[in-house]
Amino acid sequence: MTAEILSVGTELLLGNIVNTDARDLAVALSGLGIDVHWQSVVGDNPARLRRALAVAAERAELIVTTGGLGPTCDDLTKQTVMDFFGLPMVRDARAEADLRAFFAGREMPENNLRQCDLPVGCTPFYNSCGTAPGCGVRTPDGHVLVLLPGPPKELNAMLLLSALPWLRQFSGAVIVSHDLMCFGMGESAIETRLRDRMNALQNPTLAPYAKEGEVRLRVTVKAATTAEAEALMAPVIAEVRETLGDIVYGMDVPSIEAVVLERLRALGKTFAAAESCTGGLLAQRVTAIPGASEAFAGGVTVYTNPVKAWLGVDPETLDRCGAVSAEVAEQLAVRVREKLGADYGLGITGLAGPGTDGVHEVGTVYVALATPDKTEVRPLALGARSDRSRVRALAVNHALDLLRRELEKNEQ
Amino acid sequence: MTAEILSVGTELLLGNIVNTDARDLAVALSGLGIDVHWQSVVGDNPARLRRALAVAAERAELIVTTGGLGPTCDDLTKQTVMDFFGLPMVRDARAEADLRAFFAGREMPENNLRQCDLPVGCTPFYNSCGTAPGCGVRTPDGHVLVLLPGPPKELNAMLLLSALPWLRQFSGAVIVSHDLMCFGMGESAIETRLRDRMNALQNPTLAPYAKEGEVRLRVTVKAATTAEAEALMAPVIAEVRETLGDIVYGMDVPSIEAVVLERLRALGKTFAAAESCTGGLLAQRVTAIPGASEAFAGGVTVYTNPVKAWLGVDPETLDRCGAVSAEVAEQLAVRVREKLGADYGLGITGLAGPGTDGVHEVGTVYVALATPDKTEVRPLALGARSDRSRVRALAVNHALDLLRRELEKNEQ
Repeated sequence: MTAEILSVGTELLLGNIVNTDARDLAVALSGLGIDVHWQSVVGDNPARLRRALAVAAERAELIVTTGGLGPTCDDLTKQTVMDFFGLPMVRDARAEADLRAFFAGREMPENNLRQCDLPVGCTPFYNSCGTAPGCGVRTPDGHVLVLLPGPPKELNAMLLLSALPWLRQFSGAVIVSHDLMCFGMGESAIETRLRDRMNALQNPTLAPYAKEGEVRLRVTVKAATTAEAEALMAPVIAEVRETLGDIVYGMDVPSIEAVVLERLRALGKTFAAAESCTGGLLAQRVTAIPGASEAFAGGVTVYTNPVKAWLGVDPETLDRCGAVSAEVAEQLAVRVREKLGADYGLGITGLAGPGTDGVHEVGTVYVALATPDKTEVRPLALGARSDRSRVRALAVNHALDLLRRELEKNEQ
Repeated sequence: MTAEILSVGTELLLGNIVNTDARDLAVALSGLGIDVHWQSVVGDNPARLRRALAVAAERAELIVTTGGLGPTCDDLTKQTVMDFFGLPMVRDARAEADLRAFFAGREMPENNLRQCDLPVGCTPFYNSCGTAPGCGVRTPDGHVLVLLPGPPKELNAMLLLSALPWLRQFSGAVIVSHDLMCFGMGESAIETRLRDRMNALQNPTLAPYAKEGEVRLRVTVKAATTAEAEALMAPVIAEVRETLGDIVYGMDVPSIEAVVLERLRALGKTFAAAESCTGGLLAQRVTAIPGASEAFAGGVTVYTNPVKAWLGVDPETLDRCGAVSAEVAEQLAVRVREKLGADYGLGITGLAGPGTDGVHEVGTVYVALATPDKTEVRPLALGARSDRSRVRALAVNHALDLLRRELEKNEQ
């Protein structure tokens, strides 16, 4: 089955928002083995939407629209699509009851009820995050239509809860993937090690995706059932893990900080961080995860030398070695561990750019780990051509990777 | 002139990346007064690209493609487009010289030279961030074509330096806008105050955009020249500033943290922050701006009560009032100011969720400011239905807003 994603919204044409809906739908439909061959965007304009529908109907069997299901006069998608395909609409009783409950105690403008009109014979997709329902329906001319709301939260919830289960009937296969998350080796080095296997593999396939110094190795397989898919993938995953060793920090995990927090919680341990050039980015990424306080005591952004000295870095060391040095990174890790009463301490100092200090290249960073009985420093050259945000992100990854490896040793 | 943006790339159809290029192009073309009526996405497949070109040629006068200009066998856009419109290509001497310089000292695979073939009679757009040039050209059948590379950095640089200046010849007018950045009043409250003016205005227009508790009020005007545009906008901007007062924190500024840093630098002052529920997000946002160390001494992420006590929060206050309290926010601000030797201190404590402490609603946050001679606390109810990242972002905005208002008073 070939599909077209048709996004409706003038705000997309003007560039006021980026079309994450199309991306989320593309991922979800690919997962069902449905080939998305086309995406298109049209404004809130019935004449141009009809033209776009004519093009889509000619080249795709499944048409998924996003946007234009709400109550305002701009919301024209449903009426225009149903007129185009000759599908009459009726008011859906449950959608109306939900809407009236939503407005309980407040006056409901009558135009809101337009949202509850759905095509005859459709499967309604009720909206768990908003008021406008979507639907899935077959047209008299044999097309499959799916109508979804535009706000990303509503779209994603409806996709997961209603649209994907309904679409499964049109999919002859499942597509399953697993992501092996790697840190500590570049994309090209990983490709060199795995190239022969990647070229030889047909199903499952193995593909690398690089992002901010991390590589996500995606193993994807098409099979009749999920169980068969898993069985086909298991030996490939085992082989990749064998080849890459400990640069694989997890499978299907969201981030290295999530892995570190998880391991610390399992061990009942905590850590703290002193950050200079990363300026709180590590703390922020860690605390963005709910429940981080169980394993993260806190951090200090030591953005100036007096603040480094206040944390306990020796002023003589700062003078002699400079703030961008292995010695200062090590002292930051040791002091923040002591002062904040954590089991592990991380220290980060370096030059994120764009300006230089006249001594170091942009991207010169030292990350350090202090444990109850030792310290370890990793000197980094993150590239003079990297921009500030990349240097900062990579430095945080390296610091977390130091701790991740230490925790793995403790578990063995 | 009506335009279609045609993005070429299988990675877009699979949802591996989100189409920021289309958004950036839409904004840029709108700025020239060119109406983008259509966007479409097609994979790296010549037959389907030809079909998409036929659709685009029928409905748009200007076609802007992105992607597929590189050296690999997947990069088919240029050849397919030129075949479709019947435009022969020749090797561009400067592009070839640039490419050979890029490979100086390394072996260059010959297929790289394909990038340097450009249509006869085009205006080449050389690539300041990569190797593949783009171009602008008129077709024999009267269309205007612009070919741009896919990687966002390359696209944006080429757009600014080459494509927009070239496209200006097709635009009869300039469109200029200014953004008034507001914090401290919701979008609907701002709309209520300005509704009559917004409805009455035709050129310039006035439109609000909401994001993470901030409102960007965009004044946009279409005029023959930039000077005329500015003259038309000035009275509207003055009127909006008059109506909204000090909730407008700046015009055409990137963020409230940039404004705070700028004002501190102008005053020769510094600040420091102690963050509980925001976990380093404030420090991270401030230090993401180059040169922040001139005005930001540092911060402490006080993620647990012992770390709050270490910074100097009275344990008795923690016991009596709890960590989520005005008293603790105030002490955090006072202590971090003292300990880090800054002119101003900010303290943030609250409940970001998703879990609750059984006492406070999610979104209960206190932000505090300590100056050399006083303290000020702003209690916040950021909404039990807000998610963790929204509560954190809003709390940071409120803390920075406290400091921004204090600095404005000092300037007066």
